[in-house]
Amino acid sequence: MPKQITLSLDAMGGDRGAEVVVPGADIALVRCPSLRLKLYGDAAIVQPLLDAHPRVAAASELIHCDVSVKMDDKPSQALRQGRWKSSMWRAIDAVKNGEADAAVSAGNTGALMAMAKFCLRTLDGVERPAIAAIWPTLRGESIVLDCGATIGADAQQLVDFAILGGAMARAVIGVDVPSVGLLNVGVEEVKGIEEIRAAGRLLRESRLPSFRYHGFVEGDDVGAGTVDVVVTEGFAGNIALKTAEGTAKQVASFLRSAIGRSWRTRIGYLLAKPAFDALREKLDPRKSNGGVFLGLNGLVIKSHGGTDAEGFASAVELGFDMVRNDLLSKIGQDMAAYRLGEEQAPVAHAVSEPAVEAP
Amino acid sequence: MPKQITLSLDAMGGDRGAEVVVPGADIALVRCPSLRLKLYGDAAIVQPLLDAHPRVAAASELIHCDVSVKMDDKPSQALRQGRWKSSMWRAIDAVKNGEADAAVSAGNTGALMAMAKFCLRTLDGVERPAIAAIWPTLRGESIVLDCGATIGADAQQLVDFAILGGAMARAVIGVDVPSVGLLNVGVEEVKGIEEIRAAGRLLRESRLPSFRYHGFVEGDDVGAGTVDVVVTEGFAGNIALKTAEGTAKQVASFLRSAIGRSWRTRIGYLLAKPAFDALREKLDPRKSNGGVFLGLNGLVIKSHGGTDAEGFASAVELGFDMVRNDLLSKIGQDMAAYRLGEEQAPVAHAVSEPAVEAP
Repeated sequence: MPKQITLSLDAMGGDRGAEVVVPGADIALVRCPSLRLKLYGDAAIVQPLLDAHPRVAAASELIHCDVSVKMDDKPSQALRQGRWKSSMWRAIDAVKNGEADAAVSAGNTGALMAMAKFCLRTLDGVERPAIAAIWPTLRGESIVLDCGATIGADAQQLVDFAILGGAMARAVIGVDVPSVGLLNVGVEEVKGIEEIRAAGRLLRESRLPSFRYHGFVEGDDVGAGTVDVVVTEGFAGNIALKTAEGTAKQVASFLRSAIGRSWRTRIGYLLAKPAFDALREKLDPRKSNGGVFLGLNGLVIKSHGGTDAEGFASAVELGFDMVRNDLLSKIGQDMAAYRLGEEQAPVAHAVSEPAVEAP
Repeated sequence: MPKQITLSLDAMGGDRGAEVVVPGADIALVRCPSLRLKLYGDAAIVQPLLDAHPRVAAASELIHCDVSVKMDDKPSQALRQGRWKSSMWRAIDAVKNGEADAAVSAGNTGALMAMAKFCLRTLDGVERPAIAAIWPTLRGESIVLDCGATIGADAQQLVDFAILGGAMARAVIGVDVPSVGLLNVGVEEVKGIEEIRAAGRLLRESRLPSFRYHGFVEGDDVGAGTVDVVVTEGFAGNIALKTAEGTAKQVASFLRSAIGRSWRTRIGYLLAKPAFDALREKLDPRKSNGGVFLGLNGLVIKSHGGTDAEGFASAVELGFDMVRNDLLSKIGQDMAAYRLGEEQAPVAHAVSEPAVEAP
């Protein structure tokens, strides 16, 4: 019998809160009927929605919480006011005390990360958690991290991200030995920021069996799917993710207005509609909804705050998949293998090479 | 009579060198018949091409150069071997000594920037040059800088980029008072890297008449055209530019494969072809080919190394436009106005605010 999987949901998170969370859970339960849920939220709001969604009611337990974190709360404020008692905190805490296998929230990213770090703590040997996104590419899907958990990263932190992302690629996109690239402004070894070049040297020397280090990749390699895992620090990762989302929207909008110009193009559109529908499905941001917090002693998935029930369902199913595929133990094994390799053959500390700069 | 405009072209730059440069110049001369050219390159290669393109021959002077910079030369190597004598250097030097109004090269970016800095020097009061790209948006075109001249930038350098980009927006995209935004990972004033927040405070306080400071923008604002000028440092700018190029290609490729799936969608495509042609034209990277080096005592345009004659013609025409619209004197005026404002009401040095971080 497969293991029973339980997810804890912050029922109050997101722009529309429980109104999206409960119907989203309903959709997820159709596709993952064995899933069990713990819903944290204001019973006065959530219970009527459960009455209207009997499938969710049957699969879940509702735990009343007086407090909810607001979408514009600052992380420090959310922690001060919402620790121990908010729906967000309690959903995370359920993971910590073993009542749930992963937590899902569409609430404010900064608050969720602050609470997740405070409650779950980072894994032994990992300094910083990362937010990993699943990025649709020409070859399928890639993992991109960090997409904004923190800004800046040193070489060792980038190496940690490579290990975390490699484990996630094995667990979620089903590659045996994922390829890992470091996002940079050129593919030559002398290019870019010193931290990235040093991380490249460490990865090249580490020869971990769990992934294959590809080298540097550039911005256009992400969508091309050149590697399974793209490693970057949170500032550039966030800019890349949002720029790609914006560009996809822009191209779709150009196409719409070009099609609307004449009767001929509109009739052509109707005939080619199955193709446009396939494209829309392929680019649907709801399908790849869900940023995964990696590097913590527990799994937390951040759903987009503005998503609808379908999008929230994707985030729930992503959590389900990661638990089913044992992401946490894969991460644990890979981290242990890396640390062991370090102890046995200590890696010489990266020597600074002069950056190529005009005189 | 309008001023005679002369551009100097590095005839040997780019993946295919003179084979693209001379036919590209030919296309540009059809659209800008008053243009005059100085072509720097190996006469044995360039002369036969001029013989085949009489329009270019009639409008240009060929200056023989023995040396050409290779596409994979390191900047320092290019400077050592190509200074004073390479086609790239001499095209830039023609701008310095007043024989040309701007230089255009499809050669190696690092070498071109190194030579341009060495030969032309940065403008008084500007520490670092930037590469500005013209980015097609939903609202028309925006200027994005720095797209990779240097990595990292402090608050004052970001302010310089804002002034340079504002002048370019007035000269090239024809906005009277361009709006300027700082690229960041959130729009709230407390978000992001300290340098960016400090630049935001400086720009808010400077109240320059030449542009309007909008605030922070995110990755998806670039394609939306939220502001006329997007200011960022060269690492994030390069990642954003290449990610957007990659995403546009990816969407086009998804669309092609979706259309090829059935006879119905293929017939629909044929009917809607004018719309697809319009889209292709809109997204044609050759139309927006040409990175502009800003902040130097002279104008240099970098054409994409892999472009064709049509793309190289766009870079030449961009140079023509910038000279015709007096970009350099607009930059000079705006810089002078900013320095004057600084002297009259010295801006208090940005006080560091604590970054919002989880405890």
